[in-house]
Amino acid sequence: MNDPIGLVAITGATVIDGNGGTPINDGVILIEGKRILALGDCATQIPSHAKRLEASGKFVIPGLINGAVWLVDGAFATTLIRYDGQFDEVAIEAAQIALKNGVTTVFDTWGPRDPLIKARDAINQGRVIGSRIYLAGNIVGWGGPFSEDLRPQHKAAVPTVFATRVDRLWEQNVGHDLAWMTLEKVRLEVRKYACSTIDFLHYAVTAHQVSSWPFIVFSPRVQQVIVEEAHRAGLPAVGFVPGTEEALLLELNAGVDFLGLGAYSADLSAETIASIVQRQIPCGLALSTKEDLDWFRQRVEPSAHLTKTSSRDIGDRNNRALLDSGAAVFMMISGGIYSEETLSDAKDYLPPHKNAFADRHFLWLQAAQDKAMKPMNALMAATRNVAKAYKVHKDLGTLEKGKLADLLILDRNPLESAENYRSIYLVMKEGNIIDRAALPTQRLISAPPLT
Amino acid sequence: MNDPIGLVAITGATVIDGNGGTPINDGVILIEGKRILALGDCATQIPSHAKRLEASGKFVIPGLINGAVWLVDGAFATTLIRYDGQFDEVAIEAAQIALKNGVTTVFDTWGPRDPLIKARDAINQGRVIGSRIYLAGNIVGWGGPFSEDLRPQHKAAVPTVFATRVDRLWEQNVGHDLAWMTLEKVRLEVRKYACSTIDFLHYAVTAHQVSSWPFIVFSPRVQQVIVEEAHRAGLPAVGFVPGTEEALLLELNAGVDFLGLGAYSADLSAETIASIVQRQIPCGLALSTKEDLDWFRQRVEPSAHLTKTSSRDIGDRNNRALLDSGAAVFMMISGGIYSEETLSDAKDYLPPHKNAFADRHFLWLQAAQDKAMKPMNALMAATRNVAKAYKVHKDLGTLEKGKLADLLILDRNPLESAENYRSIYLVMKEGNIIDRAALPTQRLISAPPLT
Amino acid sequence: MNDPIGLVAITGATVIDGNGGTPINDGVILIEGKRILALGDCATQIPSHAKRLEASGKFVIPGLINGAVWLVDGAFATTLIRYDGQFDEVAIEAAQIALKNGVTTVFDTWGPRDPLIKARDAINQGRVIGSRIYLAGNIVGWGGPFSEDLRPQHKAAVPTVFATRVDRLWEQNVGHDLAWMTLEKVRLEVRKYACSTIDFLHYAVTAHQVSSWPFIVFSPRVQQVIVEEAHRAGLPAVGFVPGTEEALLLELNAGVDFLGLGAYSADLSAETIASIVQRQIPCGLALSTKEDLDWFRQRVEPSAHLTKTSSRDIGDRNNRALLDSGAAVFMMISGGIYSEETLSDAKDYLPPHKNAFADRHFLWLQAAQDKAMKPMNALMAATRNVAKAYKVHKDLGTLEKGKLADLLILDRNPLESAENYRSIYLVMKEGNIIDRAALPTQRLISAPPLT
Amino acid sequence: MNDPIGLVAITGATVIDGNGGTPINDGVILIEGKRILALGDCATQIPSHAKRLEASGKFVIPGLINGAVWLVDGAFATTLIRYDGQFDEVAIEAAQIALKNGVTTVFDTWGPRDPLIKARDAINQGRVIGSRIYLAGNIVGWGGPFSEDLRPQHKAAVPTVFATRVDRLWEQNVGHDLAWMTLEKVRLEVRKYACSTIDFLHYAVTAHQVSSWPFIVFSPRVQQVIVEEAHRAGLPAVGFVPGTEEALLLELNAGVDFLGLGAYSADLSAETIASIVQRQIPCGLALSTKEDLDWFRQRVEPSAHLTKTSSRDIGDRNNRALLDSGAAVFMMISGGIYSEETLSDAKDYLPPHKNAFADRHFLWLQAAQDKAMKPMNALMAATRNVAKAYKVHKDLGTLEKGKLADLLILDRNPLESAENYRSIYLVMKEGNIIDRAALPTQRLISAPPLT
Repeated sequence: MNDPIGLVAITGATVIDGNGGTPINDGVILIEGKRILALGDCATQIPSHAKRLEASGKFVIPGLINGAVWLVDGAFATTLIRYDGQFDEVAIEAAQIALKNGVTTVFDTWGPRDPLIKARDAINQGRVIGSRIYLAGNIVGWGGPFSEDLRPQHKAAVPTVFATRVDRLWEQNVGHDLAWMTLEKVRLEVRKYACSTIDFLHYAVTAHQVSSWPFIVFSPRVQQVIVEEAHRAGLPAVGFVPGTEEALLLELNAGVDFLGLGAYSADLSAETIASIVQRQIPCGLALSTKEDLDWFRQRVEPSAHLTKTSSRDIGDRNNRALLDSGAAVFMMISGGIYSEETLSDAKDYLPPHKNAFADRHFLWLQAAQDKAMKPMNALMAATRNVAKAYKVHKDLGTLEKGKLADLLILDRNPLESAENYRSIYLVMKEGNIIDRAALPTQRLISAPPLT
Repeated sequence: MNDPIGLVAITGATVIDGNGGTPINDGVILIEGKRILALGDCATQIPSHAKRLEASGKFVIPGLINGAVWLVDGAFATTLIRYDGQFDEVAIEAAQIALKNGVTTVFDTWGPRDPLIKARDAINQGRVIGSRIYLAGNIVGWGGPFSEDLRPQHKAAVPTVFATRVDRLWEQNVGHDLAWMTLEKVRLEVRKYACSTIDFLHYAVTAHQVSSWPFIVFSPRVQQVIVEEAHRAGLPAVGFVPGTEEALLLELNAGVDFLGLGAYSADLSAETIASIVQRQIPCGLALSTKEDLDWFRQRVEPSAHLTKTSSRDIGDRNNRALLDSGAAVFMMISGGIYSEETLSDAKDYLPPHKNAFADRHFLWLQAAQDKAMKPMNALMAATRNVAKAYKVHKDLGTLEKGKLADLLILDRNPLESAENYRSIYLVMKEGNIIDRAALPTQRLISAPPLT
Repeated sequence: MNDPIGLVAITGATVIDGNGGTPINDGVILIEGKRILALGDCATQIPSHAKRLEASGKFVIPGLINGAVWLVDGAFATTLIRYDGQFDEVAIEAAQIALKNGVTTVFDTWGPRDPLIKARDAINQGRVIGSRIYLAGNIVGWGGPFSEDLRPQHKAAVPTVFATRVDRLWEQNVGHDLAWMTLEKVRLEVRKYACSTIDFLHYAVTAHQVSSWPFIVFSPRVQQVIVEEAHRAGLPAVGFVPGTEEALLLELNAGVDFLGLGAYSADLSAETIASIVQRQIPCGLALSTKEDLDWFRQRVEPSAHLTKTSSRDIGDRNNRALLDSGAAVFMMISGGIYSEETLSDAKDYLPPHKNAFADRHFLWLQAAQDKAMKPMNALMAATRNVAKAYKVHKDLGTLEKGKLADLLILDRNPLESAENYRSIYLVMKEGNIIDRAALPTQRLISAPPLT
Repeated sequence: MNDPIGLVAITGATVIDGNGGTPINDGVILIEGKRILALGDCATQIPSHAKRLEASGKFVIPGLINGAVWLVDGAFATTLIRYDGQFDEVAIEAAQIALKNGVTTVFDTWGPRDPLIKARDAINQGRVIGSRIYLAGNIVGWGGPFSEDLRPQHKAAVPTVFATRVDRLWEQNVGHDLAWMTLEKVRLEVRKYACSTIDFLHYAVTAHQVSSWPFIVFSPRVQQVIVEEAHRAGLPAVGFVPGTEEALLLELNAGVDFLGLGAYSADLSAETIASIVQRQIPCGLALSTKEDLDWFRQRVEPSAHLTKTSSRDIGDRNNRALLDSGAAVFMMISGGIYSEETLSDAKDYLPPHKNAFADRHFLWLQAAQDKAMKPMNALMAATRNVAKAYKVHKDLGTLEKGKLADLLILDRNPLESAENYRSIYLVMKEGNIIDRAALPTQRLISAPPLT
C-alpha cells in the first residue's frame, strides 16, 4: 500500500468543493496525511516542504460516492459457484474497479455480510487498495440467492446443501423467516444483526421477485421495530423497493433515514412528494439516460410486460418530480461486476454496453444532465448528498478542512458537461495518489472468459 | 316448488332451540307459512286446523348454517372448462346437496359473483329448491382462477382468451390490480363492488398461493377503506387467511365484523386471544378431526413441507385456545363439490373419504366433540353463531317465534354424540318439508364419471 | 336423412371425371340410387323418368377427398374436457363441415378409435349426414394426448384418472409401451388392433413432440411386423412423420403403401426421390401457400427456432421435388375443428385466418397452384390419387360408371383457378343432394364462444 | 515422478496371473523397467543385483482395470462451472484416486475429449502419476451437458454462451446434429472424430434422458457407418445404453466389438444371449450388490417409477443370464468423482455410501460374488477381460512375461472373499511402486467442502 505522502499541495486547479458555492479558480488544497489541512485560493500559504502537485487548467472535485452497489451480486449462480469461498476477493475486485473510475466510497446495499466485512476491513484498514466500503449485508426479510425471493429456478442446478449454505451466508438469520415471527422475535433477531459491525440497515418493505404484485413484507409496527433497532445500534435505516405509494408511506412512517427509490407502479402524489421535501428526506435515485429509457420502451412488448415497461417510465416521472421539487437526491446505481459471459446474456433485457460497473456512475451523471438537473446539484448528488444521507458527512462528501482527502482531478470541467467526469487525471483517496493502471490488482470476474 | 303447508304443528319431540338453554321435552313448534308462529312445551295451544307432524322421541334443532363454502370451486380447471356457462347450475347443485344434508343456509366466501347471484336469486326467490345462499363473490384483492394467486400452472392447458374470460368472471374489477392502486382508486372500485347485490364483503389480508410467505396485500389504511366501504353499503366485512398474528391484528384494526381463521404460522399470543374474546369478535373456525390431524402428520414429510405440517398443528392449537377462552366460534368448512375424478386425486394431499361436501359439516361437529367442546356450544357454533357473525340472526339461527322455520328433525340426540347429527329424519326450510330423496335435482359435478 | 332420389340426370355441365382426360362439354351424368349409371356427352341417352338437374355453364368434378384430417384433435385439453363422452359428436360435426365444403370423404389419421368408429358407422350407415369417414385410430407407438408424445404439460391441469382415461381411449393398447416390447409381443398387439374395424393402419416412424431430435421409434424388423400385420388384416399401412431421409427409407423398406410427408429436416436425395417415383409410391403432401411460407419465415426468429423454420422450407423443397418428378401426390391437411378461442391462440404460431377446417382443402389447392402444379394434376391429387393411395378407388375418386355418386357442381371452372373450387353450387354424396345450409346440424366446437 | 527401479524381484507371494490357472504359491515375478521379465515359482532364477520385494503370505494380482468411468462427469453444473478450464486436472485427480485404490487402467467412456486427452497424455507420458487412461470423448450422437440429452434444466442457471461453450467442448462436432444428417455427412464427421487421437469410439444407440422411451438414434445403416469408421481408424467401437433387445440387436448387427450393458427394459431372449456367447462378444456389466438392489426396490415407489424399478431388476436378470451362460463379462462402473455436497444430494436416488469413486470397483467385485460368480472369473472380469474387450491385452490384463508390470500385492486372498481386494499392500504401475499416501496430489473435487 502507498503511504500518505507527508504534506502535499495541489495547486493551479479550479476547486469545486462540493458545497455548491462558486468554484475557486487557481485554488490550493493542502493535504497532510489522510486529511485536508487547508483549502483556499492562490493566496493560501504553502509550506515550503510541501510536495507540489501542479494542476493548472484542471478541476478538483470530491471523490465520487456511489450510494448503492452490490459488490457481490448474488443473482448469478455461476458467480456463486465459481467464487464460492472467494466472495471477499470478488468484493475487493469490484471496489478496485470503482476506485479506478473515481468512486472513492461505495455503499453496498445487498450482499453476503461476512465476506463483505472482510473486504471492507481489508480496504479500510489499509491492507488492500480499493474504494472505501460501507455495507448493509442482507436486506432484512429477504431470503438468500436461491430462495423464492431471488432465483429459485437456479436451485435445480446445484446441490441442495450448497444452496442452503449460500442462502445462509446471505440471510444471516434475518431472512424471510422473520415474516413468520412475532414482533418480539423479530426485534431480537434484528438487534443481534444490527450489532454485527454492519454500517447501515436495509430492510424489505415490499416483496421481490415473488410475483408481479407489490406485497408488503412486514406490518407497520414490525417495520418500526426494525428501524428502532437500527437506530439503537447507531445505524441509519432504509427500506427496499417500496413499489407503491402505500408502501412508501409505510416506510416513511417507520422512520427510515432516507429513501432508495426503485421500481414504481404508480405516480407518487404531489402530497407525498411535498412531504418528502418538507421533511428533508434524502432520496437515492436510480436515474436512466434518455437512450436507456428509449431502449426499454422499444424492447419490451407492452402487451406482455406492461407493468415492467410502465414501471420504468413511472419511476422516471417520480424521479423527475422529486428533482423538480428540490428534494435532496443522491446517486444509486444498484449493480456490481459481471463476467463477459453474464453480460452477453443481459443484452436481452438491458441496454447494450450499459452494464459495466466501471461506467454506470458516469451514466448516472449523464442521466441527471438529460433530466436538466443543474450541474452543481448533480455533482453534489454524487458526493455530498450521499454522505449526508448515510450520515458520514463529518469525514466525507466535500473538500473541506479536516475531511478525508478523497478527491479527483479532472482534465475538463464537470460542470460544463457530464461527459467530463470521465476525464480523470488523478484519483486521491485518504491522501494517497492511486495507481489507477494497476487496478484491479486481482482479476476474477473481470478476467476475460475462457474460449 | 313445495308451497308452505298452511299451519303445521311439530309435536312430541325434544326441542333444542339453539339459544343454549335446557331443551324442551315433548315440545311443540307451530309454523305458519315460512315462519315460526309459536314454540313451547306440550301445553302450547295447537289450533285444530293445524296439520300435525308427530315427532315423539325425536329431536328438533335449527337448520345448520355453514359459514364458509365455495359452491363453485374455481381451483380446478376441469370444472371451469366443463361447466363454462353453467356455473349457476353447479352452485345450485351444491346448495341442494347441502340442504339434503341438513344445511339450510350457506355463506359462499369465494366464487364467480354473477353466476352465484343467479343461483342465490333462483333459490331465495323460490324458483329452485336448495340451501339459502349468501355470497361474497371475489375475495377483494385476489386474481382469478388462472392468476398467480391460484393456479397459474393451469394456464398452459387452456386458450389465453378463455383464461382471461374466466379470471374476469371471478375478479369483477376487484382483483389483484387493486394492490397497485392509490387509496382513492381502491375506494371507488370497492364502493362499486359493494353495491353489486353481494351479501358480505371478503378481502385479502395476506397473499394466497404466491409463495410460502405470508405477504400482506394492502396497507392498513387501504384495509380500513375496504371495510369502510363494506359498512357503507350495509355489508359485514371479513378478511381472508391472515396467516400470522401481525396480519390478524391488521385485519382486526381494519374493523372487520368477524374473523375467518385459517392457516396459521405461529401461535397467537394470549393477549391477542384475550382481545378477540373481550371484543366479542366471532371467529369462524375450520376444525379438523383427530383422524385428520393424524393423517396430515404422517403423510406430509416434515423435511419437505415443514410449514404446511406445522400450520395444521398451529392452527389447531390456536383453534383450541379460542375454544378454551370462550370465543364466539362458528363453523366454516371452506369447500364445495368435486367430481369423483377430482376427489380421487385429492387422496394424495387430503385425508381419505373426507372431502365429500355432503359430509364435511358433520365432520366439523365431530371435530368440535374431539376438542371437548360442550355439545350445546357446538350446536350453537353451527347455527346461531354463524347467523350472528353474518348479522342475519333476526331471521336465522335459532328456533324462535317470528324466525324463519328452518329446522331439522333428528332421530337421535345431537347433544349426546356428534354422530347423531347424521340421523336426519326431516329437513324443513322456510316451512317447507324438503323432499330429500329428490336432491340434487340436477347432477353435473356429482354425476358418476364416464368410464 | 335424404334418400337417393331414384334416377337423376345431371345435364349441361362440363364434366371433369378425375381421370385426367379432356373434360366433356355439355356432359350427362346418370345416377341411380347411390351410384353412377352412365356418363357421357350430350348424346347420352336419358330415360324419360329421370329427374333432371340442369347445370349448364357449370362444372362437375368428383367429390373432394382429404387424405389426412383429425376429426377430434386431441392436442387441446379444453376439447378433451369439454367434449368428454361426446367425441363421436365432435367427429360428426367436423365431418359435416367438411361435407358442406365439398369434401365427400375424409381419412382420419389420428384420433380416439371408438368414438371415431361410432361416428363413421353413423354416417356410413346413413343414420347421420356427413363426409364419409375412414379411420386409423391411434398412431401405433404413440401415447395419448397427455403423454410425453403430445402435451404432458397439460397433465397438471386435470385429474390423474381423467388423463389416464383419455390416454387409454387414444392408445387402445398400441401406445408407447410397444417400444419396450419384444417383436412377438408387438406383433400380437398390432394384430389385435388391426382387427378392430379400423380402415387403415398408421404407425410412428419417428418420435413426436418429445425433443427436437428425430428419434426412431421402432427397429426395422418391428416396423416390418407392424406393416405385415396391417396387410394380413387387409389394411393399407402408412408411417408418421419420418423427419429424415434415414427414417423415410426405413418406412419404405417396411413396406408401407404410401407416404405421408411431413416435417423434414433435410433435402431428400435425388436417388430417394427417383426411387419413390419409380416404385409409384403415392405421396401425401401437406402443401403450404406462398403467403403461409412467407409468414413462417418472418415470424419465427431464425436464431431461436432454426430447425422449425428450415423444416418448413426444406419440406417445401422436398414437396416441389416430388411434384417435379411426377410422383403420385395427394392432398393431406392434418387438422380438425377448433373453437374460436383455440384459434385465437393459434395466431402466434400459425398464419392468420388459415386454420379454419372449412378452408384448408381450398388452401391446399391454392398452394398446389402456387407451386405451378398442372390444374388437372391438382384436381386428381384431391380426388382420384387419394382414393388410390388408400386403395378405395373401386368406389371413389373419379366419376365413372359404377362408382359412388360423390360429386360437386361448381359455378366456375376449377381448372382455370384454384379459387374456383370455392364456387360450390351443389354437393352430392352417394346420389343424395346435400342440404348444405343445414350443416353442421350440431354445433359443439364450432358454436360461438360464451362471452 | 518415480522412475522404474531397475530390476526388481517380488518373492514369496501367491501369484494369480489373471489367466485363470492355478495360482503359483511362493511365486517370483521379475520386473525390469516397465515390464515383466519373468514369472514363475520359487525356483525362478533371481539375478543377484535385483532388488527384492519380499511378499510372503501375500497375493499378487494384475492391476485392476475399470472398463467404464467418467473422469469428468458432465452431469453436474457445479462441476462444470467450478472447474471450467481445469477439466484436465479434475480427470487427473480422478485417475489418481483410481490408482490409489488398485485400478491401474481406466477406460473413460464419456467426457470432454480435449481435457481428457491432455490428462491422458500427461499420465501416459509419465509427467503426472495416475491410472492409465483410454478415452472415447463424446458419445457420438449425444449433445453436451446442457443439451436435451443431459440436463437442459440447468441451462437457466448459467449464461447462454457458457452453456454453448461447454456443450461444444463435449460434442466436438459429433453431437446430436448427426441425427439430422445424411449417411455421407455422418461418415465424414465420424471419420474426422475417429482420427482425433481418441482410443475407442462410443456411439449412442438409444436416446438418453429425453423421455421415458427407448428411442433409436441412428438407422441401422448409419450405425454401421459409424462402426466402420471406427474400425477404419483402428479403434474398437461400442454403443451406449441399448435399453431394449431390439436396440441391442441393432448394435450387434452394426458390428460393435463389445457390449456395454446398461438399463434394460425387458429380459433378453435366450436366443440373443446364446448368440452373444457363441459370437464371443465381450459384455461390460454394471453389477449391483444385493444391498443396492434391495435399496432400489424399497426406495422407488413402484407406482410412480415403474420402469426404473423394473429396469434395475431386469438388468440384473439379464446380467445373471449372461453370467450363467458363460459370456465373457467385464467390469464397468460408469461414474466419477463427486464433491461431498453433490454426494449428499445423491442420497435420495442412490444407495448410501455407495457413490465414492474409490469404492465402486470393490463393490462390483462384491456384487459378482453375490451373484455366485466364480472368484477366478470375477478376477478375470476386472483385469484380463477388460483388456481383451478393448483389444489392449498385448500389454495389459495379466501377469505375463513381456507385459507391463501393473500389479497389486494384497494382504489377503481375493479368491476367498471379494472383500480382500481392499487389503492392498502395494500398487505397482509400469514397474513403479506407487506412493499411495500421496494420492491424489491435487485435491479439487475431492477436497472437503467450504462451511
